[in-house]
Amino acid sequence: MSNKQKRFFLQENEIPTHWYNIQADMINKPMPPLNPKTKEPLKPEDLFPVFAEELCRQELNQKDTWIEIPEEVRDMYKYYRSTPLVRAYGLEKAIDTPAHIYFKNESVSPIGSHKLNSALAQAYYCKKEGVKNITTETGAGQWGAALSYAAKVFGLEAAVYQVKISYEQKPYRRSIMQTFGAQVTPSPSMSTRAGKDILTKYPNHQGSLGTAISEAIELARTTPNCKYTLGSVLSHVALHQTIIGLEAEKQMEMAGEYPDIIVACFGGGSNFGGISFPFMRHTILEGKKTRFIAAEPASCPKLTRGKFIYDFGDEAGYTPLLPMYSLGHNFAPANIHAGGLRYHGAGVIVSQLLKDKYMEAVDIQQLDSFAAGCLFARAEGIIPAPESCHAIAATINEAKRCKETGEEKVILFNLSGHGLIDMSAYDQYLAGDLTNHALTDDEIEKSIENI
Amino acid sequence: MSNKQKRFFLQENEIPTHWYNIQADMINKPMPPLNPKTKEPLKPEDLFPVFAEELCRQELNQKDTWIEIPEEVRDMYKYYRSTPLVRAYGLEKAIDTPAHIYFKNESVSPIGSHKLNSALAQAYYCKKEGVKNITTETGAGQWGAALSYAAKVFGLEAAVYQVKISYEQKPYRRSIMQTFGAQVTPSPSMSTRAGKDILTKYPNHQGSLGTAISEAIELARTTPNCKYTLGSVLSHVALHQTIIGLEAEKQMEMAGEYPDIIVACFGGGSNFGGISFPFMRHTILEGKKTRFIAAEPASCPKLTRGKFIYDFGDEAGYTPLLPMYSLGHNFAPANIHAGGLRYHGAGVIVSQLLKDKYMEAVDIQQLDSFAAGCLFARAEGIIPAPESCHAIAATINEAKRCKETGEEKVILFNLSGHGLIDMSAYDQYLAGDLTNHALTDDEIEKSIENI
Repeated sequence: MSNKQKRFFLQENEIPTHWYNIQADMINKPMPPLNPKTKEPLKPEDLFPVFAEELCRQELNQKDTWIEIPEEVRDMYKYYRSTPLVRAYGLEKAIDTPAHIYFKNESVSPIGSHKLNSALAQAYYCKKEGVKNITTETGAGQWGAALSYAAKVFGLEAAVYQVKISYEQKPYRRSIMQTFGAQVTPSPSMSTRAGKDILTKYPNHQGSLGTAISEAIELARTTPNCKYTLGSVLSHVALHQTIIGLEAEKQMEMAGEYPDIIVACFGGGSNFGGISFPFMRHTILEGKKTRFIAAEPASCPKLTRGKFIYDFGDEAGYTPLLPMYSLGHNFAPANIHAGGLRYHGAGVIVSQLLKDKYMEAVDIQQLDSFAAGCLFARAEGIIPAPESCHAIAATINEAKRCKETGEEKVILFNLSGHGLIDMSAYDQYLAGDLTNHALTDDEIEKSIENI
Repeated sequence: MSNKQKRFFLQENEIPTHWYNIQADMINKPMPPLNPKTKEPLKPEDLFPVFAEELCRQELNQKDTWIEIPEEVRDMYKYYRSTPLVRAYGLEKAIDTPAHIYFKNESVSPIGSHKLNSALAQAYYCKKEGVKNITTETGAGQWGAALSYAAKVFGLEAAVYQVKISYEQKPYRRSIMQTFGAQVTPSPSMSTRAGKDILTKYPNHQGSLGTAISEAIELARTTPNCKYTLGSVLSHVALHQTIIGLEAEKQMEMAGEYPDIIVACFGGGSNFGGISFPFMRHTILEGKKTRFIAAEPASCPKLTRGKFIYDFGDEAGYTPLLPMYSLGHNFAPANIHAGGLRYHGAGVIVSQLLKDKYMEAVDIQQLDSFAAGCLFARAEGIIPAPESCHAIAATINEAKRCKETGEEKVILFNLSGHGLIDMSAYDQYLAGDLTNHALTDDEIEKSIENI
């Protein structure tokens, strides 16, 4: 490769100054979230008791294509952005493909994942509006760690509800949050009504993102000067994550290529939307032919096997009703290691885009995801997060197809995070102790009916 | 900071093409290593049975100022280099100092530390000379992880002896090595004579770097087509690490400043030498006034309280006799979390430079190191390795002095690695469970007499 460039960076003054709001460009706009009691479409004001006001306006903004990134947030982006766009020469060689594989390396954020892009924005708006405490939920802990640090940056106190099984299985992520000064509580806990109700019904409940969201929302509602923040699913989170794709667009230009295929793993949709939307803009406006592939776990297949329905975002039913591909808000996914992908629904923007066939979805089995992760680690030196392994597996599948057909397709995927805190998962995989998780159509049907 | 640049990168074609060999410029050359039996100065050929031949020549090269980095190694450097030079605005603000603090962020290497710079070089030379297996020791596992990946890159098998207490306390690092396909054995083990001897004498021996080195050397000597590699102490390792300082020199120029003080933590000297030597060149040749500060742990104070003597590099006495500041090769340091700094001696180049007063050394207590690490994490978002915390503590001390005097000194330190795999250490620190480790003069005197 000697003369070929491996990594592409932007200068600090080239880092995008605006986020891209795909809602403004979408031909079919996302359907509105509904007030569960009145069934009326939500207005931003309806969300003010829970979220910072500016975030509520961003959530429902279908008008402004570009939303300025506040200077204070841009200043903090400089701490780790631009993240590199990397040509995966090592991976290409390992699978002997004619495809050109690129990845956007969000794992170099100090927190280890893309989550910081939105955490900084959310903490900033809270601070600006006079909030003192912020609260949230976290699964594997990537979002919780990002929010804990972002809170510290803007002088806020952070309280994080961590899904109990992750709290116990991934003690390092808890320690990271605590090192940044956050208060971390395993969920379900006895500190909220939602938590108590669940523990009364299921004393050994291992926790889920849906439950932890309920607890955090309840804390925000019942605590003065406290707002709730969310790490994915919502449209304003995906908005903040478009910094990934906007940078990648400029960096692909530096590389002299344009992606034929874009791949990201899929939990609630923020890292997928983050890398995809700025490129999808050219598909919507100029008819560019790019395939957008969301890679979800086979054990939590809301995009490939869920239904497009109005459903709650959380277990207790505290959130508005959202129009989304869902497995039902009481769906209990298997304990796969990709904790960040264990969520029952997809964000409203992505749900509409999938319905309108702007994008595709594939499901990846747990064992295939780790096989891909190990191959990537040995080829590129970076141990990927179990979540990101799903994107890598889907990328490898496409690259192998190129090998069969001889096509030199350009594939770009998002490396959403590193897996250094998830080594116990790799341990189990290498020892042969991991399994796949099959779901019958009956199980899915039953969970959706439950809504 | 809005208009001020936070991070400085080099383009790939600006990455240095040669390592800097300070031995060629030193006025008093390092004293020669001696054959322990004949007491004759070593020739490169004497080291051929253990190390790749080119590495032996580099080890004793006092003639060539610049040594070309092989193209294959430069190609792999592109996977993560240049590492950013970062202006620590957050830290400056947190301690309210007029000093300008910069750090070279080696933690963004895929392995999480600077160790990869030499691992790639050593694995490359082994491969080039037809070696099939490489072996080494590791403490905390930073070096072992780097070598495991480097071996995979160049198609070699790697066997790593990991200090037993680290093997048990830091299972994630072991997993990382195994994910890269290395064979990892806790040391002391029953697989070598050196290991057996120690276990017979001390059945509960927790391991030390000195012991693990003995085991790895023995394996290399008794296995066909197998060479030993070392992660610090030796002159060729520091040579490879000069890529850090050479990049930093160009990046400081981009920032329009020149360091008044350079700080690095100190185990065997490779990260210290790596960032210091290229700048020290200007001190030796042009009389530039820069202070070079090595920050060592108070519990393993070879530079501040050791003696300049001829000593072995390992526990069993397999190595040549090296002229170095040492606490004695049987010195058993306390179980501090900065496993990479638990080594009894200093490399021969650094030892000579300290003797000749080109540099200084300070000792840092364990509690002060973690206090500095937490302050840095909250200010800059990066959780530093326990080793790097020592450099940060020394930097903060200097910056606070600037606050007293009002001087706008420029301080550059090396962030040698991140601490994401060491969170249990932070846990213990935050819980108040860590202590300092005092050493009496008597204890040190006795350990040195033992040689």
